[in-house]
Amino acid sequence: MSGNRGLYVGRFQPFHKGHLYAVRIVLEEVDEVIVVIGSSQFSHEVDNPFTCGERIVMVRGALEEASVALSKYFLVPVPDVDNHSVWVAHVKAHTPPFKKVFSNEALTSRLFVEAGYEVNPIPFYERETYSATNVRKRMLSGGDWKTLVPASVAQFIEQIDGVERVVQLYKNDRVN
Amino acid sequence: MSGNRGLYVGRFQPFHKGHLYAVRIVLEEVDEVIVVIGSSQFSHEVDNPFTCGERIVMVRGALEEASVALSKYFLVPVPDVDNHSVWVAHVKAHTPPFKKVFSNEALTSRLFVEAGYEVNPIPFYERETYSATNVRKRMLSGGDWKTLVPASVAQFIEQIDGVERVVQLYKNDRVN
Amino acid sequence: MSGNRGLYVGRFQPFHKGHLYAVRIVLEEVDEVIVVIGSSQFSHEVDNPFTCGERIVMVRGALEEASVALSKYFLVPVPDVDNHSVWVAHVKAHTPPFKKVFSNEALTSRLFVEAGYEVNPIPFYERETYSATNVRKRMLSGGDWKTLVPASVAQFIEQIDGVERVVQLYKNDRVN
Amino acid sequence: MSGNRGLYVGRFQPFHKGHLYAVRIVLEEVDEVIVVIGSSQFSHEVDNPFTCGERIVMVRGALEEASVALSKYFLVPVPDVDNHSVWVAHVKAHTPPFKKVFSNEALTSRLFVEAGYEVNPIPFYERETYSATNVRKRMLSGGDWKTLVPASVAQFIEQIDGVERVVQLYKNDRVN
Amino acid sequence: MSGNRGLYVGRFQPFHKGHLYAVRIVLEEVDEVIVVIGSSQFSHEVDNPFTCGERIVMVRGALEEASVALSKYFLVPVPDVDNHSVWVAHVKAHTPPFKKVFSNEALTSRLFVEAGYEVNPIPFYERETYSATNVRKRMLSGGDWKTLVPASVAQFIEQIDGVERVVQLYKNDRVN
Amino acid sequence: MSGNRGLYVGRFQPFHKGHLYAVRIVLEEVDEVIVVIGSSQFSHEVDNPFTCGERIVMVRGALEEASVALSKYFLVPVPDVDNHSVWVAHVKAHTPPFKKVFSNEALTSRLFVEAGYEVNPIPFYERETYSATNVRKRMLSGGDWKTLVPASVAQFIEQIDGVERVVQLYKNDRVN
Repeated sequence: MSGNRGLYVGRFQPFHKGHLYAVRIVLEEVDEVIVVIGSSQFSHEVDNPFTCGERIVMVRGALEEASVALSKYFLVPVPDVDNHSVWVAHVKAHTPPFKKVFSNEALTSRLFVEAGYEVNPIPFYERETYSATNVRKRMLSGGDWKTLVPASVAQFIEQIDGVERVVQLYKNDRVN
Repeated sequence: MSGNRGLYVGRFQPFHKGHLYAVRIVLEEVDEVIVVIGSSQFSHEVDNPFTCGERIVMVRGALEEASVALSKYFLVPVPDVDNHSVWVAHVKAHTPPFKKVFSNEALTSRLFVEAGYEVNPIPFYERETYSATNVRKRMLSGGDWKTLVPASVAQFIEQIDGVERVVQLYKNDRVN
Repeated sequence: MSGNRGLYVGRFQPFHKGHLYAVRIVLEEVDEVIVVIGSSQFSHEVDNPFTCGERIVMVRGALEEASVALSKYFLVPVPDVDNHSVWVAHVKAHTPPFKKVFSNEALTSRLFVEAGYEVNPIPFYERETYSATNVRKRMLSGGDWKTLVPASVAQFIEQIDGVERVVQLYKNDRVN
Repeated sequence: MSGNRGLYVGRFQPFHKGHLYAVRIVLEEVDEVIVVIGSSQFSHEVDNPFTCGERIVMVRGALEEASVALSKYFLVPVPDVDNHSVWVAHVKAHTPPFKKVFSNEALTSRLFVEAGYEVNPIPFYERETYSATNVRKRMLSGGDWKTLVPASVAQFIEQIDGVERVVQLYKNDRVN
Repeated sequence: MSGNRGLYVGRFQPFHKGHLYAVRIVLEEVDEVIVVIGSSQFSHEVDNPFTCGERIVMVRGALEEASVALSKYFLVPVPDVDNHSVWVAHVKAHTPPFKKVFSNEALTSRLFVEAGYEVNPIPFYERETYSATNVRKRMLSGGDWKTLVPASVAQFIEQIDGVERVVQLYKNDRVN
Repeated sequence: MSGNRGLYVGRFQPFHKGHLYAVRIVLEEVDEVIVVIGSSQFSHEVDNPFTCGERIVMVRGALEEASVALSKYFLVPVPDVDNHSVWVAHVKAHTPPFKKVFSNEALTSRLFVEAGYEVNPIPFYERETYSATNVRKRMLSGGDWKTLVPASVAQFIEQIDGVERVVQLYKNDRVN
């Protein structure tokens, strides 16, 4: 039933070209990928500026732009849980059955390995450049963040006045 | 940005032909529908037997079976919040922008109306017969529940041994 | 520091003449009363239709109408806690210091007595008639609920279309 | 590492002779039993009158009275989780490793079976008589509840004025 | 109904002369101010040393000392919510209706602006000196913190041995 | 009823020789000690690597190794609460009655003193060396952590591959 399905987890704050690259890599290994939008409940925070709904728009737009068929992926928001030791069970309850996990994060990998899953690393795509932290940093410094994300994501962020939000959240964090 | 997009909320425990009928009706009014899987965090309860992940499989399978294109809908799980007065804001944070709400539930309607939304009723499709409560009742009594749900949903429920789960949850509820 | 201050807890869904009578009785015993709006986080439920903010308006309006000086009372919303055994500590953390507790509720009394407080009963004021349950029941049946509440409360409930909300919440509860 | 260890879950509101019988039965099958005090966070409720700490005293006292050596069991309180689908992972995170599960509850059994555990039923010991519900019922009606529980439990409940608490919680529940 | 009412949010850890100045400024613009005690659930933390109840005493005492009539303000504790995107709805559910928001905080301003409110900045009153952070810093270093707060606040903090609490919380934070 | 019982709270991440020394010291003062495993809900975090269940195994093993009789102590996990001001009531609800509190932590001491308890300090046992922070630091640097913990604890940590977990959690924390 879980057929040849893989799981890929990210926070996508925002979704960038490194994420897109990872989705492509995963789809070379499996028939369908479950893209989990992690920490789905957070937004309007320095490290989590975008809402779950905004991230859904970004991921779907970016995959459409990249010609990844809707039939090849599930897009599933999953909120955090307090206790890491139930996180794998929590993810399983939120998602269609899957067999393989794809991750480069030490904690995600550790938790799935302890739960008996096969975890596959994903080769990074110029990690120093293509990271959500770097995208937000460039937004704050007025740098070129648009080349780091798919065109549709850049356009959407501008539509929702996203850079200004990131700047204001950063200011707030400095003061408090 | 919210274009001509509608919102439709259900718990889908399980997804039945009445739900499918509603999705079709909504898609006659709007270009895209956001199907919200409400109370997404619950499962293994008498009234909420199926997990979020299982409901995702059911809805997607049923809509594929009914030839509703993936590009016509978003499928978004949303967990409950303690306080009804923030529920509309909570749904908005989890979903792409939308303009119209479609609902027959008094509480859902009330909350969206108080928040300034246009709420459209959906004509029921033989409500006495096609309700999730009735599906679960027939599962318990050994009645014909399969004709109430799309074929793909019936098949999936059998795959996961779902009727037995419903029966066991019911037994548990009687004893405690 | 807690001087001669008393505590009185209610949910005030809505605030009625029985509540007003109780506040007066308490103020015959103590110099200042802390009026706690309990279960402050709930609203839009059959038994908890009004928000915390709406209940603040009701209580303050009713006490002004009854010429109870603002200097005689504190109005403090307190959300519920999961665990009754920490509830007294929770209330104490939310309120100015107090010496006496006034209550007719068995649970409230028990918890404060177990925590070492003196709990004083309040003589009921025609309890069968003046209860929040009865007010809501009359709202549902189209009966005369207005004579059960202070005039300012009746007026406010009409302003916010409160009877319609109670009716819709009731309908919702019947269906689900 | 999980050696020959079994898991037994109860709420123990209060601990009665049927629970004691079950512990003995389990210890005939395994070397050590983990006695989980479920719903540990609740107290002062009609169906959950006793605190976690009070239940610890009851279980430990009853097992000492019954000459069950401390080295034969672990006594571990586990709070509820919102979502049944993570409950097994949650229990595992709170307890030493175990191999077998002993339970007569349909839900507990179902969840552990779905997680791949072997679940063993426990023969009931005059279930109609020896149930916590029956003990509390007799407390309310002034009946003989003491013969249903180990002597040390009866003594402890009297020390903490437990019957009076059960009576008051019941009264409260009738009124609200 | 929301008449000419303004909202002003603070944590008031503790309430100082800058806060008092802000309340005065707001009352030059509106007839009534809702003073929200934010993060009401926290206390005994390095940055949140005082309980909600203690802060109520401080604010009410300070405004009385400053001859701000009780009829000019509502004092309403509001606990935090996990998710910033529902915070405005959460505040609205806890407070009487209001039209204008007064704030200098970037996050508060952003959230209310996104929700369609007019947000007015408040000119700071020697911000470097009159900040809660500075008050707590002086408490820790044995400096003159009393001149930064209204006399009644200083007196209350001494009554509850507040400086010693701040010192102990700071020590604790250093060690852990 | 609380006889001559003392309370000792720790997180035991992991249990080390300083903790063992403290338990011994407490047992010179009281007949029975309640060992509370604090922050019981956390695991797989840089500062909280071990689960509640793993910590139960460690403490019980270490005390057996040190010939501390099971009848001399209660081992009780207690999850955190959001609000420090209810923490003492929360601990009391989870534990058998106790009279004295033993602690060196400023916050624990402060909270119990404010609640009216006698709090006794525990002389530290070479604190710079024997601290859980230091044990984890040595695990990360490949240093000799085994001499800091009882032999049974060292053995258990190796069994569960604990050092590798600490290392992976640390890596994860650096990257995110």
